[in-house]
Amino acid sequence: MKFRRSGRLVDLTNYLLTHPHVLVPLTFFAERYQSAKSSISEDLTIIKQTFEQQGIGTLLTVPGAAGGVKYIPKIHLKEADEVVNDIGEALSTPERVLPGGYLYLTDVLGNPSILAKIGKLFATIFADRPIDVVMTVATKGIPIAYSVAGYLNVPVVIVRKDNKVTEGSTVSINYASGSSNRIQTMSLAKRSLDKGSNVLIIDDFMKAGGTINGMMNLLEEFNANVAGIGVLLEDEGVDERLVDEYVSLLKLSTIDMKQKIIEINEGNFHEFFHSKA
Amino acid sequence: MKFRRSGRLVDLTNYLLTHPHVLVPLTFFAERYQSAKSSISEDLTIIKQTFEQQGIGTLLTVPGAAGGVKYIPKIHLKEADEVVNDIGEALSTPERVLPGGYLYLTDVLGNPSILAKIGKLFATIFADRPIDVVMTVATKGIPIAYSVAGYLNVPVVIVRKDNKVTEGSTVSINYASGSSNRIQTMSLAKRSLDKGSNVLIIDDFMKAGGTINGMMNLLEEFNANVAGIGVLLEDEGVDERLVDEYVSLLKLSTIDMKQKIIEINEGNFHEFFHSKA
Repeated sequence: MKFRRSGRLVDLTNYLLTHPHVLVPLTFFAERYQSAKSSISEDLTIIKQTFEQQGIGTLLTVPGAAGGVKYIPKIHLKEADEVVNDIGEALSTPERVLPGGYLYLTDVLGNPSILAKIGKLFATIFADRPIDVVMTVATKGIPIAYSVAGYLNVPVVIVRKDNKVTEGSTVSINYASGSSNRIQTMSLAKRSLDKGSNVLIIDDFMKAGGTINGMMNLLEEFNANVAGIGVLLEDEGVDERLVDEYVSLLKLSTIDMKQKIIEINEGNFHEFFHSKA
Repeated sequence: MKFRRSGRLVDLTNYLLTHPHVLVPLTFFAERYQSAKSSISEDLTIIKQTFEQQGIGTLLTVPGAAGGVKYIPKIHLKEADEVVNDIGEALSTPERVLPGGYLYLTDVLGNPSILAKIGKLFATIFADRPIDVVMTVATKGIPIAYSVAGYLNVPVVIVRKDNKVTEGSTVSINYASGSSNRIQTMSLAKRSLDKGSNVLIIDDFMKAGGTINGMMNLLEEFNANVAGIGVLLEDEGVDERLVDEYVSLLKLSTIDMKQKIIEINEGNFHEFFHSKA
């Protein structure tokens, strides 16, 4: 069917937003809208300007026969700071202190609009790295991992601490969890990860990094590469960390069980934020 | 800053898509774009037409001082059928048969674009019901639950079969899992669900319905209501089901371990599909 420019702009915007990091040939849109390629190019110029101005992302244009246009989700640093500050404030309330020096995160990790912002922020930071898959460990990291993966348009694999029969044959490793210092087991289904995959590791909370280090060891067993590591919250009060390069959005500086005082600061994500805007 | 109509259409489309089921006053947009309300109304008419024509959703306009516009994600029945057929075909390959008569679903549940379609389909079906929260049980139902919750713009709560310390005090119940007929325990953090909440239960797979029945019993303990039940795949070969009204996208009709034959058919979702388009 035939589209006017106004209708095209609406549908194009929806199409690009729902197909991030996919190179779409201009001929696809020309056929979809029964319009000349030159008209589509003009539409894309308008969309690119608006996306960049509003902190929605950018459009990458690849010229030539195999070319097309690609939507890269990117938020502005200003919005990133607002998102991180808001989450930090929400997490700093005294009733979040749980027995054992843990922090109640469940409601924040259950909120889809907060998750969308966290996911888009990580996707901005890791936009230029080659990533084939996002990996996390059950259970709390899962929603963050899916949100990031949605914006990068790559699949998620979930490492499990149990060994469910429905996964088929698995590869398991032992690791020392920093928080409890107990030897634990983590497993991943053999068929869930290809050799040589570039893997972004995502988790909600990192103390010494034992769990993330375990995932890195597991990736070696699969001959896969670590493309990056992102955590929502790192624990600042750790003497020796098992993981070197990682991106954290927030830092847990103090958690006082008796006084119920929590102090949360910005993580290290500014060092990794390359978006121009 | 000032916007031209073309830029407004792009930003409005993005804004509405990222704020589903939220009533936004027209004055909000009038201020955002420094434009007259009448211009915004014209923009919204264009967007509504395109959304409905393209199976993106619809816009609901509420008149009056407390009024505004609300984006309701809705897909066409034709696209729903395509999505369900594609997933059904992907799930019917012989190598998916796992020991114990299980089906390998992990890769499908790890694919964000498939999940987005499943989520939008359930959100279409349950669009008109009062829903405050989506509930699922760890681990496999989680990505579907988050996808649905994103389109309905409500939080997710996750029932767990273990009892993690980081959740605070919990309510637990025992239930008989249909597949193994063993008595198991499921728990939900006390502070994660308010009294009187209307809860949409989402899961990946249902045999006799023991797990879902368990979640329903758990909701009673919280004085919460079941607003609906949605499963990706139901097992047809069950004599007695513990759950009456539920929506299934797909039906596992045959799974033959020896011959490695899987037969999957459409579930019952057509009965619940009220979208006009």
